[in-house]
Amino acid sequence: MTESRYAEAGVDIDAKAAALSRAREAIRSTFTAGVIGDVGGFGGLFRPDFSAYREPVLVASTDGVGTKLKVAAAAGRHDTCGADLVNHCVNDILVQGARPLFFLDYVAAGRLEPDVLEAVIAGVARGCRENGTALIGGETAEMPGVYAPGDYDVAGTIVGVVDRERILDGSRIVAGDLALGLASAGLHTNGYSLARKIFFDELGLQPGDRAPGLRGTIADALLAPHLSYLRALEPLLAQGLVHGMAHITGGGFYDNIPRVLPEGLDVVIRSGSWEVLPVFEAIARLGKVSFEEMHRVFNMGIGMVVFISPADLQRVAAAWTESGWRWFAIGNVKAGGRRRVVIEQASA
Amino acid sequence: MTESRYAEAGVDIDAKAAALSRAREAIRSTFTAGVIGDVGGFGGLFRPDFSAYREPVLVASTDGVGTKLKVAAAAGRHDTCGADLVNHCVNDILVQGARPLFFLDYVAAGRLEPDVLEAVIAGVARGCRENGTALIGGETAEMPGVYAPGDYDVAGTIVGVVDRERILDGSRIVAGDLALGLASAGLHTNGYSLARKIFFDELGLQPGDRAPGLRGTIADALLAPHLSYLRALEPLLAQGLVHGMAHITGGGFYDNIPRVLPEGLDVVIRSGSWEVLPVFEAIARLGKVSFEEMHRVFNMGIGMVVFISPADLQRVAAAWTESGWRWFAIGNVKAGGRRRVVIEQASA
Repeated sequence: MTESRYAEAGVDIDAKAAALSRAREAIRSTFTAGVIGDVGGFGGLFRPDFSAYREPVLVASTDGVGTKLKVAAAAGRHDTCGADLVNHCVNDILVQGARPLFFLDYVAAGRLEPDVLEAVIAGVARGCRENGTALIGGETAEMPGVYAPGDYDVAGTIVGVVDRERILDGSRIVAGDLALGLASAGLHTNGYSLARKIFFDELGLQPGDRAPGLRGTIADALLAPHLSYLRALEPLLAQGLVHGMAHITGGGFYDNIPRVLPEGLDVVIRSGSWEVLPVFEAIARLGKVSFEEMHRVFNMGIGMVVFISPADLQRVAAAWTESGWRWFAIGNVKAGGRRRVVIEQASA
Repeated sequence: MTESRYAEAGVDIDAKAAALSRAREAIRSTFTAGVIGDVGGFGGLFRPDFSAYREPVLVASTDGVGTKLKVAAAAGRHDTCGADLVNHCVNDILVQGARPLFFLDYVAAGRLEPDVLEAVIAGVARGCRENGTALIGGETAEMPGVYAPGDYDVAGTIVGVVDRERILDGSRIVAGDLALGLASAGLHTNGYSLARKIFFDELGLQPGDRAPGLRGTIADALLAPHLSYLRALEPLLAQGLVHGMAHITGGGFYDNIPRVLPEGLDVVIRSGSWEVLPVFEAIARLGKVSFEEMHRVFNMGIGMVVFISPADLQRVAAAWTESGWRWFAIGNVKAGGRRRVVIEQASA
């Protein structure tokens, strides 16, 4: 064999192949009935079973995990961001009523450390398994010079399906509907640039440090997983109980809720009606972030807002309580509005 | 309005929104009949028309453009890598016989310059239009601290469809088949780390410089577009003339061709049977890269290898010549082998 000029330039094809080979079993563990073939083809093959659908519509979404990755890497935890990514994507198509079919990931770095790559893919595979989603493809890219040493990025694409007549676009939301909030576990995957700036740059803390008001370390608080709400919503969607949903991601309450509100309606959210997680209280206090910006950047403890009829509250409450979901009645839909979100501050 | 702490941390949501708004028209221009709704929902909606398929199988692939981006950015050309990306992905599922349905892109940077973002998305949209592929989603991520100033990454995911009985997996390739090569336009999207190292690091040249043997500048040579072979192959696939295909990407001839070779067969490629592009001759000569490694890293002027029966050569040749495709008969499939690619060096 000739000496590899390509490896010299920073791309070690063999090391990458070895890591991918180890990750192969994790990938196979996600395979559902629709998957055709094995890991390693040019493109992933998926034979959808649309027999239960009158008019199947594919729903697709791409996302990343943002700078949560920086916190995870600094804490040496490379196996959690993959599940964060999958859960984020599952929620993004869930709000349109879709259930996931398959997923593809993209991992890029200056130089891919095989152990890190394996841990990242294992995390993606775990997220896929937990959501019944097949991991049918992916790309690992080595881009020396684009990423700083030790840094990497992870993105993913989900494809799901919904029957056309069951697509949720918010048009079923009516005045008088209740806004229920499903609890988040933390920041999920949004607001990390600001959180990192406050904890690490301004306060000079390390991921392993403790901050006033937080139970564990800062890394523990910031790396809490992005929850998937698929299992909480699937049964309600099947019964047609959901009028609309908003996944509280980048842009917080103010940007995400109006995306599903019909003309002429407002949503009034009652601050104080749910438990704001300690990490958000710490960020607001230590970083001197305003009430409004906190609700524009962070989920504040509410990962998914679900609009239902008051008549269905008991059924929904029973289903969620029985299956152990934490939820709160956080607001109401009002007529005569202009697709605004009004957050009423609780009096102290 | 309160002062934005989030913008201070390096994420300017408003600037991003303005660029995305300008890109919206480009995105809409890609919409095909299957697209439901408009730009800006949580997930893209696509209603596939499978009426012409007996057993539709979805084929999906994710890819990036590698460090070709670095060359494009250094040359100030941000509107070409998007089409490179789409064409790469189209080819990746084409080799399994699939035609594209829709695409999603992922653009990440430390800070997204709105003009650059707009140009990148316009390039993706152009690539989608040229391949009849709807751009139904995407994510733009700002990750201060992960990407160096001015650097960004672009990745994409394609979803296409093929009838199950028409999936190409190489199993139709038999001894005696011809290997035809469709000409590439340059490096396409592979081997840039090595090419950049040679031209820029070792030789100390700039993208705007000329190198011996190249007609234009180094940037011109390196930024030649990744071609889509969809239009060249669609009619042949419809007629069932293609036994198998290999997209010559990372890993060159040696890694990509065996992926479609059945057990017991080898492929003998005759070096000298096609026109090696000047950029590859310059890289080999100036970088002292071995013959074998050149064919392992680069496409050498052949972007797609297509296996057909010798009996169909005239029909294929007529179709390609009529529609203006440059192609070469570059080799043959031999029995008694072990899925090897043997490249016979032409005698000088």
